[in-house]
Amino acid sequence: MFWDRFPLIKEEVVQFEDYLQGTLVSRQPLIQEAISDLAKSGGKRIRPALLMLTAKFGEYKREEVWSLAAALEILHMATLIHDDIIDDANLRRGSETVQSKYGKDVAVFAGDYLFTLTFDILAGEATNEQLKQVSNIIKQICEGEIQQHQDRYNIDVTYKGYFKRVKSKTALLFEGSCALGAGSAGLPKATVRNLGHYGRYIGMAFQLVDDLFDFTKSSSSIGKPKGNDFTQGIYTLPILYTLYESSYGEKLAELLDNPLENNQEIKDIITNNGSLDYTMKVAKTYINKAKKKIKGLAGNPYHQILIDLADIVVNRDY
Amino acid sequence: MFWDRFPLIKEEVVQFEDYLQGTLVSRQPLIQEAISDLAKSGGKRIRPALLMLTAKFGEYKREEVWSLAAALEILHMATLIHDDIIDDANLRRGSETVQSKYGKDVAVFAGDYLFTLTFDILAGEATNEQLKQVSNIIKQICEGEIQQHQDRYNIDVTYKGYFKRVKSKTALLFEGSCALGAGSAGLPKATVRNLGHYGRYIGMAFQLVDDLFDFTKSSSSIGKPKGNDFTQGIYTLPILYTLYESSYGEKLAELLDNPLENNQEIKDIITNNGSLDYTMKVAKTYINKAKKKIKGLAGNPYHQILIDLADIVVNRDY
Repeated sequence: MFWDRFPLIKEEVVQFEDYLQGTLVSRQPLIQEAISDLAKSGGKRIRPALLMLTAKFGEYKREEVWSLAAALEILHMATLIHDDIIDDANLRRGSETVQSKYGKDVAVFAGDYLFTLTFDILAGEATNEQLKQVSNIIKQICEGEIQQHQDRYNIDVTYKGYFKRVKSKTALLFEGSCALGAGSAGLPKATVRNLGHYGRYIGMAFQLVDDLFDFTKSSSSIGKPKGNDFTQGIYTLPILYTLYESSYGEKLAELLDNPLENNQEIKDIITNNGSLDYTMKVAKTYINKAKKKIKGLAGNPYHQILIDLADIVVNRDY
Repeated sequence: MFWDRFPLIKEEVVQFEDYLQGTLVSRQPLIQEAISDLAKSGGKRIRPALLMLTAKFGEYKREEVWSLAAALEILHMATLIHDDIIDDANLRRGSETVQSKYGKDVAVFAGDYLFTLTFDILAGEATNEQLKQVSNIIKQICEGEIQQHQDRYNIDVTYKGYFKRVKSKTALLFEGSCALGAGSAGLPKATVRNLGHYGRYIGMAFQLVDDLFDFTKSSSSIGKPKGNDFTQGIYTLPILYTLYESSYGEKLAELLDNPLENNQEIKDIITNNGSLDYTMKVAKTYINKAKKKIKGLAGNPYHQILIDLADIVVNRDY
C-alpha cells in the first residue's frame, strides 16, 4: 500500500481504516450498501493521514484525532458522490459510482447522509470552533462547485478564478486536515497556521497535477469519468496558459467550440506547447512554498514524512 | 398572514422572518440568488413557530431559540431542494423550484450549502447534545427518502412501512422543533418529551392531510409538482386502505399498472370508497393523541395556541 514507505505512520493508517469503516453505518440497507461500496473502493486516505501527522507534533489525542479524521474523510466522500451526479460520472477510482449503480436519486440522499454523518461525528468530539472550521470549509466547497459549474465553457475565465476554484475544490480540505490536526495537539497558533498553509499549498499542487493528468493519462488508467475536463467545459491551467500565453491561443479557442470532435487536436496542442511543463512548474512552486512553511519543525521525524509527501504530490504517476 | 390569528406570537414570527433572511447568505451570487428565491417564496414557518411556542413554557432564551429555529427551517429548505431534484418538480408553493430554474447541478450544491448553513448556525449556539439531536433527525430523513424511493411502485408496501415513512418525512422534524424548543427553556425532561410527542403527532397528521390533498386538490392549487404521488409510484394511506380493506383492491392494483392512463379512474375509486374519510379519521386520532400529551400544560396561553394549531392541521384547506 501507499503508506508502506512510511513505517512510522503506516500501522495507524491501517487501524484507522477499520475505525472509519465502523463509522460508516446506516440502518437503511441501500444506504449501507452504497457507502460500504464507496469505502471499500478505497483511496489513500491522504486527508486523515495529514490530520494524524500534523497532530503528532504536539500532544497526540488519538480519539479526537481519529474522529476528526473520519469526519473529514466522510465529508470528502460526500462531495465525491454529489460531484459524480453533476459530472454524470460512471467510474471513480476504477469502481462504479453511486449515481451510476444506484441512480441519481439515491446518490443525492446518500451524499446527504454522509454530510450528516460528518457532523454527527463532530457533534460527539469536536469543539464549536472546530465545527465552525469544518462548516466554513464545506460552504466554500459548495460555492466553488457552483462557481465551476457556472464557469463552464467560459473562455474568459481568469487565472485568478482558476486558482480560487482549485483552492475551494481541493486545497481547503487539505488545509483543514492539517489545521485541525495541529490544533487538536495544542500547538502554538503560529505553528497551526504554518501547518495549515503547508496543507493548502500541497493541496494546490495536488489539484494542478490532477489537472495535468487529464491530458497525459488515459481515462481508464486514473479510474475517472469518460472524457476530459475540457470536453465538459472545465478549463484548467494548461488550457488557460495556451489560450493566454501561447501563439496557439486563437486556434485553441476555435477548437474548443467543438471539444469532442477536436479532442485529439486539442490534446496535441496542449501537449506540445509547453503548457504542461508550465503547470508542473507552478505545482512545484507550491510544493516549495509548502516545505518552507514547515521549516521550523525540521528535526522531528514527522517533519520528514511531510517533506516526502510534498515531493510525492508532484512526482507521483497516479 | 397565517399567524394573524395568534397575536401572542405573530409579532415574533414576523421579526424572525427578517432574522432568517439575514442568515441565508452566500458569497457566491448564484447560491445567494437561489436561496433568496426560496426564502421569499415563503411558507408558514410552522417549524420555527413550534420551536418558539414550546420554548415559551420555560425560560425563554430568544437568541438560542431563534438560532435553533433558523437552523431547522434552513434544514427543511435543504431537504425541499433535494426532494425537488428527485421528484423532477417544477413548482413548489407556486414558485419555480431551484432545480427547474437553475438546473439539477446547481440544486445539488445549493442544497448542500443549506445543510452546511444549518450546522454552521448550530456550531455558534447549540450544545453538542442539540447537534446530535439534529444530525439524528437528518440521518433518518435521508434514510426515509431513500426508503420511499425504494418502495416506489411496490404494491406490497405495508401500513407499518407507510407510517414509518411519514414519521421520517415530516413528523421527526416537527418533533425535533418542539423538543429543541422545550429543551432550550430548561423544562423538566418529561415535559420536553411530551411536547416532542405533541410535535410528532401533529406532524403525522400534517403529512396524512397532505397525502389526502393529493386526491382532492388540483396540483396548481397546492403549488405542487405536476402529477400525483401515485403516478410516481408513491402509495399513501388512501391507496393502501383501498388495496387492503376495500372490495376495489384487485381493480386498483390493476389500474396502478398504468397510473398515468388510469389517473381519473383511480381518483374516482379512491374518492368514492371511504378511504379519504378513513385517512382523515386516522389524522384526527393523531391530533387527539397530540392534545392529550400536553394536557398538563393547560392554563398557559401558549397551550391554547398549540391546541388551536393542532385543530388547524386537520381542518385546513391548503
